[in-house]
Amino acid sequence: MFYNPKSIAVYGASNNPQRFGSMIIANLISGNYEGNIYPVHPKEKKIFGLQAYERIGDVPEPVDLVLMVLPTRLVVEKIEECGIAKAKGIIIVTAGFKEVGNEKPEEEMRRLSKKYGIKIIGPNCIGEVSTSSNVNMTPMMVKPIPGNVSLISQSGSYAAHVLLPIIQKIGLGISKIISVGNEACMDLVDFLEYLGDDEETKAIGLYIEGIKRGKKFLEVARKVSLKKPIVAIKIGQTEAGIRSAMSHTGSMANNEGIISGAFRQTGVIQVETSIQMLNALKCFSDVPLPPGKNFIIETVGGGPGTKLADLLEGNGVNIPLLSESLQKRLSDLLPPTASPKNPVDLTFDPVWDNFYSKIPKMLLSSPECDGLLIYGFWGTKLMDEFFKYMPLDQNAIDSREQMLEFYLKMVNSYIKKMVRMSRKYNKPIIGSSVFFRDEEPFIEYCQDVGLPVFLLEEAADAIVSLVKYAEWKREMDGNHKNKLFS
Amino acid sequence: MFYNPKSIAVYGASNNPQRFGSMIIANLISGNYEGNIYPVHPKEKKIFGLQAYERIGDVPEPVDLVLMVLPTRLVVEKIEECGIAKAKGIIIVTAGFKEVGNEKPEEEMRRLSKKYGIKIIGPNCIGEVSTSSNVNMTPMMVKPIPGNVSLISQSGSYAAHVLLPIIQKIGLGISKIISVGNEACMDLVDFLEYLGDDEETKAIGLYIEGIKRGKKFLEVARKVSLKKPIVAIKIGQTEAGIRSAMSHTGSMANNEGIISGAFRQTGVIQVETSIQMLNALKCFSDVPLPPGKNFIIETVGGGPGTKLADLLEGNGVNIPLLSESLQKRLSDLLPPTASPKNPVDLTFDPVWDNFYSKIPKMLLSSPECDGLLIYGFWGTKLMDEFFKYMPLDQNAIDSREQMLEFYLKMVNSYIKKMVRMSRKYNKPIIGSSVFFRDEEPFIEYCQDVGLPVFLLEEAADAIVSLVKYAEWKREMDGNHKNKLFS
Repeated sequence: MFYNPKSIAVYGASNNPQRFGSMIIANLISGNYEGNIYPVHPKEKKIFGLQAYERIGDVPEPVDLVLMVLPTRLVVEKIEECGIAKAKGIIIVTAGFKEVGNEKPEEEMRRLSKKYGIKIIGPNCIGEVSTSSNVNMTPMMVKPIPGNVSLISQSGSYAAHVLLPIIQKIGLGISKIISVGNEACMDLVDFLEYLGDDEETKAIGLYIEGIKRGKKFLEVARKVSLKKPIVAIKIGQTEAGIRSAMSHTGSMANNEGIISGAFRQTGVIQVETSIQMLNALKCFSDVPLPPGKNFIIETVGGGPGTKLADLLEGNGVNIPLLSESLQKRLSDLLPPTASPKNPVDLTFDPVWDNFYSKIPKMLLSSPECDGLLIYGFWGTKLMDEFFKYMPLDQNAIDSREQMLEFYLKMVNSYIKKMVRMSRKYNKPIIGSSVFFRDEEPFIEYCQDVGLPVFLLEEAADAIVSLVKYAEWKREMDGNHKNKLFS
Repeated sequence: MFYNPKSIAVYGASNNPQRFGSMIIANLISGNYEGNIYPVHPKEKKIFGLQAYERIGDVPEPVDLVLMVLPTRLVVEKIEECGIAKAKGIIIVTAGFKEVGNEKPEEEMRRLSKKYGIKIIGPNCIGEVSTSSNVNMTPMMVKPIPGNVSLISQSGSYAAHVLLPIIQKIGLGISKIISVGNEACMDLVDFLEYLGDDEETKAIGLYIEGIKRGKKFLEVARKVSLKKPIVAIKIGQTEAGIRSAMSHTGSMANNEGIISGAFRQTGVIQVETSIQMLNALKCFSDVPLPPGKNFIIETVGGGPGTKLADLLEGNGVNIPLLSESLQKRLSDLLPPTASPKNPVDLTFDPVWDNFYSKIPKMLLSSPECDGLLIYGFWGTKLMDEFFKYMPLDQNAIDSREQMLEFYLKMVNSYIKKMVRMSRKYNKPIIGSSVFFRDEEPFIEYCQDVGLPVFLLEEAADAIVSLVKYAEWKREMDGNHKNKLFS
């Protein structure tokens, strides 16, 4: 009903496109939402070409979902009207309730929700996204990439105007984004439980300001973590942060130590920043869990390889010295100035077949390797610069563009093989680059076919999350087995 | 001589543009280097249209600077030839020396350097950049933005194929990039001392794998820090990292605790990642040092404001609760759902004149504020999406493009005023956004006129560095004054 609505009514849309409700309708239309859209407006007859209705009772069918962006004082009255009109769910964007000390209307919301059997999200939330039904009911005018990652956020801002652009940048595929607002009727734990059973969701991200039902959270988070990874970011950790969180969604930010402890117990992976969370989710979405914590770094630069090793080893991932025999086999593929120890440093070596194929295969197939981090995914942008100075053979290839296309196809085909390799050995491969998706088609290709590529040192953070969850999962599965045999 | 060379000779260039030496020449030509370029090649007569010389002795003038990308075994012999030809300086890119246990030739380098009075950088480095003389002698085919930040790197990779693209992304203006390689003759400390006195350099970044002359480093770093900020990243901190650093530039990575202690003593600001370092340098390059550590956050989103408060307060920056009187004055400009406490949260408020002008002015002019962090620098990209749905008045403005241009001019003029405000009160203003320079002309404008804008939480890290250095500097200046009066 919330995520696959057959019909949507919107309170608060007008023909002024800068109004929040108008943006929602614009997003539904431009996103190709296939259900019926019913604007509800006291005066307008048509909104964005759609027939508008004076009251929800005038709409020709009971709607699945209502979105409300109304003046605070009107909300409760309109909920009642929605109840009478047999709407199934309401998302209340309107603010001005508990977060500013106005608690009474939220009690009313709970009463009406029970009275009419109507589900209510919010108030003071930012809308929702559900890609499988082309629903983007946020003010962000973008079309998220469909995928298997879902987010629940107690911060509407993070859910909408922060997350969507960044999500696009790393090519993260989204199933659902849920902004819970003040949680008057339904809270984060309800939605976590829902996503735990949701077949479209493979990994879950949480923006947490405060947890209302601590015990229930522990129970649900643990159950869900056993099925799929949860990555969480906690906001409101310091005095100023807590003060800010309280005046924002009115939630009492819980004690940092208790929350972190709860996360650890339940397998929830805690990270510090949005980028870390989204990058970790991109990994969980695309690559197999590492069978152990020994990673090998393949790099074309000593400094970056060293820094990545620091960040991984400093956070619980092993970067083991490779065995003599593996080092010897690697050395046959490396220039004399290179190092086969781990990081495996190719230095300035332009042999693609070694970098993208032979060395990854040699490493991934070895029992010394539980996962691979490759630094130096340049793609073809820099190559294009070389081509400016290259005399072209007019018979073979007649333009720089064609040459570039040829090279892009070649390097993309290496990536395709690498992804197959990763699945065959059931070990993750993560890439690190200095280029972004939107400036380098090669990076876009990698991210889309299942080889996540991150900016520089960000790749290390993502691997740390991957390894932490895999370790917790292994421990739990082990305990489970022990119990079976004891 | 290294940074303003009148003539440059290059060993190792050919007409194959994928050769390292060729890239150097291509970069010098396309970067509009105005001095003479002399390719030295045993066979070719012309390279990229330039006359080539068989030996450096044949070049018609004693050259200021020589770049060598030769087979390892030829290097020492060619240094001697350069000495005889009265070249003043040599940058040796060639690897295969101390980092692979081949120490003897480096002794020879030192001997020849003394014998001929010739300065030598490297070996095993990646070249250099000096924007004031249009010199980019790295293989990165980009033209760095000229500016007042200089970098010294013990990792050639970081200096070249990592730094340049990212530098462009945040609009960081560069004066010099120095890759020191194996430091056979000149080390990081020499260059740090040089940059300390360099009038073109306002802030310095260091990539450090290991420090050779510890005592001298302490002395120089302290002296330089009193004049200009130094931001450092230490690589090779863990077992694997140290192993990697050793096989890379042959440097013995020093004990992490000792290095960090040395940094603290000498006012060097240590950061963890490349992005943190470059963002911090962008701040030091553009904004005044904060007179104290009380920051105010102005935000259009509760969650992001809270997270920024967490990250600042968790790292030594105060986010003070504002006084009743300031809160009251702010409230007059805020919607009723907003919070004036700090973070000052405007929520979803589209009034530009408040967000970009009245509120920043009110905050900056208050003694409660030592610096301002503004979250929500959207610019006009999202606006363009609205315009798609907006009926245009054909008489006033005849296209979406024109309308967008109009709004861009307007928002840019706010930024100009804000930068003036920042200078008037001598307090920094830092922005946070979800957009990058290359996708949003507004961000480019901000970054170019002196209001640094960073991605999301990255803004907090940059401010932490700014505050740390300002605090150290104040303490030192205080000590100095105390001495004068005692």
